[in-house]
Amino acid sequence: MKINGRHYRTIWRAEDGESVEIIDQTRLPHEFETATLRTLEDAGRAILTMQVRGAPLIGATAAYGVCLALQEDASDEAVDAAIAYLAKQRPTAVNLRWALDQMRKAIQNLPREERLAAAYKRAAEICDEDVETCRLIGTHGLKIIEEIASRKAPGEPVNILTHCNAGWIACVDWGTATAPIYMAHDKGIPVHVWVDETRPRNQGAALTAFELGAHGVPHTIIVDNAGGHLMQHGKVDVCIVGTDRVTANGDVANKIGTYLKALAAKDNNVPFYVALPHTTIDWTLNDGRIIPIEERPVDEVLKMPGRLADGTVVTVEIAAPGSPAGNPAFDVTPARLVTGLITERGICEATSDGLASLYSEKK
Amino acid sequence: MKINGRHYRTIWRAEDGESVEIIDQTRLPHEFETATLRTLEDAGRAILTMQVRGAPLIGATAAYGVCLALQEDASDEAVDAAIAYLAKQRPTAVNLRWALDQMRKAIQNLPREERLAAAYKRAAEICDEDVETCRLIGTHGLKIIEEIASRKAPGEPVNILTHCNAGWIACVDWGTATAPIYMAHDKGIPVHVWVDETRPRNQGAALTAFELGAHGVPHTIIVDNAGGHLMQHGKVDVCIVGTDRVTANGDVANKIGTYLKALAAKDNNVPFYVALPHTTIDWTLNDGRIIPIEERPVDEVLKMPGRLADGTVVTVEIAAPGSPAGNPAFDVTPARLVTGLITERGICEATSDGLASLYSEKK
Repeated sequence: MKINGRHYRTIWRAEDGESVEIIDQTRLPHEFETATLRTLEDAGRAILTMQVRGAPLIGATAAYGVCLALQEDASDEAVDAAIAYLAKQRPTAVNLRWALDQMRKAIQNLPREERLAAAYKRAAEICDEDVETCRLIGTHGLKIIEEIASRKAPGEPVNILTHCNAGWIACVDWGTATAPIYMAHDKGIPVHVWVDETRPRNQGAALTAFELGAHGVPHTIIVDNAGGHLMQHGKVDVCIVGTDRVTANGDVANKIGTYLKALAAKDNNVPFYVALPHTTIDWTLNDGRIIPIEERPVDEVLKMPGRLADGTVVTVEIAAPGSPAGNPAFDVTPARLVTGLITERGICEATSDGLASLYSEKK
Repeated sequence: MKINGRHYRTIWRAEDGESVEIIDQTRLPHEFETATLRTLEDAGRAILTMQVRGAPLIGATAAYGVCLALQEDASDEAVDAAIAYLAKQRPTAVNLRWALDQMRKAIQNLPREERLAAAYKRAAEICDEDVETCRLIGTHGLKIIEEIASRKAPGEPVNILTHCNAGWIACVDWGTATAPIYMAHDKGIPVHVWVDETRPRNQGAALTAFELGAHGVPHTIIVDNAGGHLMQHGKVDVCIVGTDRVTANGDVANKIGTYLKALAAKDNNVPFYVALPHTTIDWTLNDGRIIPIEERPVDEVLKMPGRLADGTVVTVEIAAPGSPAGNPAFDVTPARLVTGLITERGICEATSDGLASLYSEKK
């Protein structure tokens, strides 16, 4: 999408044809800077330190990390070492392992001198495939926004609430939950996004607000507490969120707090949609309640990064000194609260039958 | 309640018999300091700058402010001017106007030389009455906690979730939502409190966590997003919150986000109680949806105060630069989601009939 009028992806091959450029997301939202990855270690560090984040983007960065390793050494041993090194940077990231498997398949059994070109080709394909998946999610979700807009007075915006960042900067372009929003906006449909701050890591106030603002989409940051009140007062037409894992029966694991918004949506007859690529569906589970929930460091709750008046970025302690904290990072929204799943193949009910109607080959 | 083992109220007459001491709540939770009010203007400034906060404590401070004014000048004109000055410091605070009315009644028609003593007497009574009201709320709410404890294994804590700060530092002592908790703790019943951070002003992480910690009550700070997940997993036995206004039919206006917790409590069969003195009941309204909701400054959402590593307290900007914010300060929880109202007269259903059973003289 656009930043200050210029189109970006989150990752791209540099003009030298060898190195790779990324948006340095550790600087966001306080500063917009790109960074250049020239070596395997640069790619590993970008993943580890969350210069890149979001499952699809982590996978894409790992894919290019294999390319950067091959520039140094195209031997089987070097490929194995590079893949092992990249995989351990974020051990729980499913997309990271998937992308590395794809890269291995693309280069194994090739002569060494052909490996580098094949790797760059496959890495580019992984990026393009992700863009196309998100674009398709957007085209399907766009219909929901268009339908709501058709019931409104001309010029009256469609109010969409989102939680966390399931945006283009977590992917390569478009995003998942944001793809329908960008498409509607680019098509001239007036949209306005309520951006949940998304404590404790503030991905909404920091990242979603940044990317919507940079592309020119009208939006308003609210604290996570406010969404229910807005729904009670008819100020939200539809909720669209992303997800980290959807079980085969349609339960949705997503950033902590998603469940509360789904409850409020149900209580106020606001449609609640979840946008996802099929790779997020865990066909092995039929009950979201058994998804293990990561407990993250409590400093995310007790401390907060921000800008001083002079622009310096510092971290401050915000809570009562000595008080302990808890930090469950995700929650599970039961399928009964989900209006529909927006996938690259279309929209379905959040049920086993709904998913089977789109992915019959998986059942 | 206790701070570092010593019993405090939030406001008390100094040993000199003239000035008044308060806990300076603008320094909390970063520093614990008391401040001395010697003049009417000191009292007005304490209210305006939120050195004192919480409806009962604001009223008590205004009452003592009248005493401080009388030390200078006990004329009718001076009393009128002092009351007008104090009333305008927080124009929407109902308790402030109530306390000033009480003070006027206590001193009007008295000879000037008797006014100061009568004023100090009435101000002390206002404080004592608030303490007694909160104590009674505590004794009634204690039964809820005792009943839950009786169903648990010995030593297993009762897990209570609260939102915002309806604690003793918003009152004179005990607090409203916290009174049953302090009473249970002091009686040796194991309790553990999930403290909602309560964005945007963080009264939970800053104030509730401070006062619970200072009194020695086990607690854990969580982000506002986390409570639903904890309820889904059986980690919350009961919710107890305060309120800013309860309508005659039992709808509850309270800090933004309360509604979301009430929805989650209902969805998980967790009892949801609201603690309040009868002065919080608005007998003129029969529908919470018509309560006007204050929209507060957006800097509360976009900025955050905190401590640097060296102890300096600074304010940082935390959101994407240039993104707008919205800040509705309260929401309304429909009576259907409220298990019961804990008042100084006992516990009742959140219905017109329930309230009538305790306050028959009002109907």
